[in-house]
Amino acid sequence: MADLNLTRTLTQTGTTKIVMLVMDGLGGLPRTPGGPTELEAAATPNLDRLAREGMTGLLHPVDIGISPGSGPGHLGLFGYDPLSFLIGRGVLEAVGIGLQLTDDDVAARGNFCTVDGDGVITDRRAGRISTDECARMVGLIEDIALPGVETIVKPVRDYRFALILRAPGLSEALNETDPQRTGLKPLVVEAQKDTAEARRTADLVNQWVDAVRVRIKDEHPANMVTLRGWSRTPGLPTFLEVFKLKAAALAVYPMYKGLASLVGMDLIQGLANVDDQLAALAKLWNDYDFFFVHYKYTDSRGEDGDFDAKVAEIEKVDRIIPRILDLKPNVVVVTGDHSTPSVLRSHSWHPVPVLLWAPGTTRANPDVTGFGETQCLSGALGQFRATYLMNLVTAHALRQAKYGA
Amino acid sequence: MADLNLTRTLTQTGTTKIVMLVMDGLGGLPRTPGGPTELEAAATPNLDRLAREGMTGLLHPVDIGISPGSGPGHLGLFGYDPLSFLIGRGVLEAVGIGLQLTDDDVAARGNFCTVDGDGVITDRRAGRISTDECARMVGLIEDIALPGVETIVKPVRDYRFALILRAPGLSEALNETDPQRTGLKPLVVEAQKDTAEARRTADLVNQWVDAVRVRIKDEHPANMVTLRGWSRTPGLPTFLEVFKLKAAALAVYPMYKGLASLVGMDLIQGLANVDDQLAALAKLWNDYDFFFVHYKYTDSRGEDGDFDAKVAEIEKVDRIIPRILDLKPNVVVVTGDHSTPSVLRSHSWHPVPVLLWAPGTTRANPDVTGFGETQCLSGALGQFRATYLMNLVTAHALRQAKYGA
Repeated sequence: MADLNLTRTLTQTGTTKIVMLVMDGLGGLPRTPGGPTELEAAATPNLDRLAREGMTGLLHPVDIGISPGSGPGHLGLFGYDPLSFLIGRGVLEAVGIGLQLTDDDVAARGNFCTVDGDGVITDRRAGRISTDECARMVGLIEDIALPGVETIVKPVRDYRFALILRAPGLSEALNETDPQRTGLKPLVVEAQKDTAEARRTADLVNQWVDAVRVRIKDEHPANMVTLRGWSRTPGLPTFLEVFKLKAAALAVYPMYKGLASLVGMDLIQGLANVDDQLAALAKLWNDYDFFFVHYKYTDSRGEDGDFDAKVAEIEKVDRIIPRILDLKPNVVVVTGDHSTPSVLRSHSWHPVPVLLWAPGTTRANPDVTGFGETQCLSGALGQFRATYLMNLVTAHALRQAKYGA
Repeated sequence: MADLNLTRTLTQTGTTKIVMLVMDGLGGLPRTPGGPTELEAAATPNLDRLAREGMTGLLHPVDIGISPGSGPGHLGLFGYDPLSFLIGRGVLEAVGIGLQLTDDDVAARGNFCTVDGDGVITDRRAGRISTDECARMVGLIEDIALPGVETIVKPVRDYRFALILRAPGLSEALNETDPQRTGLKPLVVEAQKDTAEARRTADLVNQWVDAVRVRIKDEHPANMVTLRGWSRTPGLPTFLEVFKLKAAALAVYPMYKGLASLVGMDLIQGLANVDDQLAALAKLWNDYDFFFVHYKYTDSRGEDGDFDAKVAEIEKVDRIIPRILDLKPNVVVVTGDHSTPSVLRSHSWHPVPVLLWAPGTTRANPDVTGFGETQCLSGALGQFRATYLMNLVTAHALRQAKYGA
């Protein structure tokens, strides 16, 4: 298994430039038996060229037969074993809306719910209120003050919000307040460890929940909250520490900026589309060693179940490849954080096509004429766990010392 | 991961004969994009025949994306996980000049350096004195006696020498004396553990360093030493214990004899070239089960950056194959301890071609017509970590029991 502590001792600084282009949910399945996948159906002359000149393979973002969430999928690509580094639900919710967490933060995922006159839950999701209504509700509770603690409350989507308590000496060892079914009252928060920190944090959260109850008891349909997924930032060693790479994240969506921030990449703000991303890539070319470029819509169209639309998104990405090559990168990696076959309309466990293009340091990719799932089976990289990808990337960028004499 | 403790319970004695031919630095890269590697460019009719009749694949000596040193590379081929068994710098230096270490030995790498009248280091490498000068300097200090301890001092190369203290009850828990920059005096050795063994060893080393100072203070440019890389033999279980194989090392260069000695192979002395190696192979055929035959020059020519010369070395090795087959071996393995592409002039992370020829116990190697990196991608062995190789070898030699009933 790729080991960050080993990697850290081998990586070296350098002048080579690396671009990692992640097409979210890239991998797919045939629409009809024996037919092409989305990637195989797409006309991708530029990716095909990189596949011929570089090396291809298939990667397992988490492990064989495991369907990754976006968090684990990206951690794997970034070289952090998603089976070792867990991102709690509360942290993922906060990171997913672009909040940057500090080591002092304890985060929870909140749900607005509906309770009756006795405080018994009648709808755990408050009729799935709209995101706008969620934002209005958050406006009613976001200024609740707690002694010695900064509280941050932000709407996420529908009935979901993020809660962060920020102060030294807090604990995430708390029970969830959602009783997981209607007909029960929200649970009181209690310390799950016998420590002063956990007891203090439980007291603070109960104070906060009590204040929320008073503030929103006359609202409808959302008139109460539940809290779950108590967690802290996973404390990942940074990309700079592990790989000696100064890294920039060129992402449009908050979730992917958040994931990049967990490994210490610089977040480039104000990017609304792929043209903005490419302009930023060119502008920042001399300032960074590593560029993470994230493209969301391949996953979105897969989740929609729209095979043809996913094909079209892949073709859009193919057309930006020449603009990346114009910058003369030393290593280009193109892959996805997981598969999202449009026939399944969801993330899947299928290994993800990957291509690694690095002039002068790659071997032949026999019989490979293009970039697609079936051809990747014959690629020189074989099938491997995604945690090895950054080892391969830094090796091909000539940024690794040998192991042992 | 291959597990020696498991292997040890499965292996059995037998009468089959195994030859492992290691072409150092065998793996390569194309000189021009799309062209052949060194191995693919070489005319290797005999290896091609073995590849067709046996099975081929690609092995990762340490792990995916890691460039191995010679020590870890060979440990992997011998079945010992180089990520679990570390060879300290002092031990490697001793082993590299053919010294055989006992369990009583503590080894350090020594550097001759230059100090000024106050004992402050002005050149950490004494102007990189020649190996001959190093040998003369060693002659001045090799007979320094310590109470109850045998000391062994041998020149290595340039300003480097090996120091071994041999006595029961010594410790390697000592600090390095090299301050890592000029303008400072060599550090005094102190125990890094609070044990009588460590304190005693530190005292002994300081006595030795004091005696060295007196002996060479008027020499020039080397007039002092620093010591680093304190280590003991890694205490590997022997080849005989793990694999039930009586093994002979037929190597010309001291480093590879030293590595073979760490796993308990018998070192066959006095071999100056491949003809000597083959003569010894024939002569000792009835005395051993396993023969490690090491060929250095494939790596040397790769390190030189000389593609054509590496091709020529590979062709030389190909021509000895019939003489090996004449002995009727049951298993022949041909591989390398790492790749040394001549275009990179260094060890690299690229997986190494391997062929395993074992009449009657191998499956078809589909579409494979010869031995080369690209064809090995389609080989029946696939890509695998080198630690599995000895499992495959003993299995194909019919020297393994089944696991479980």
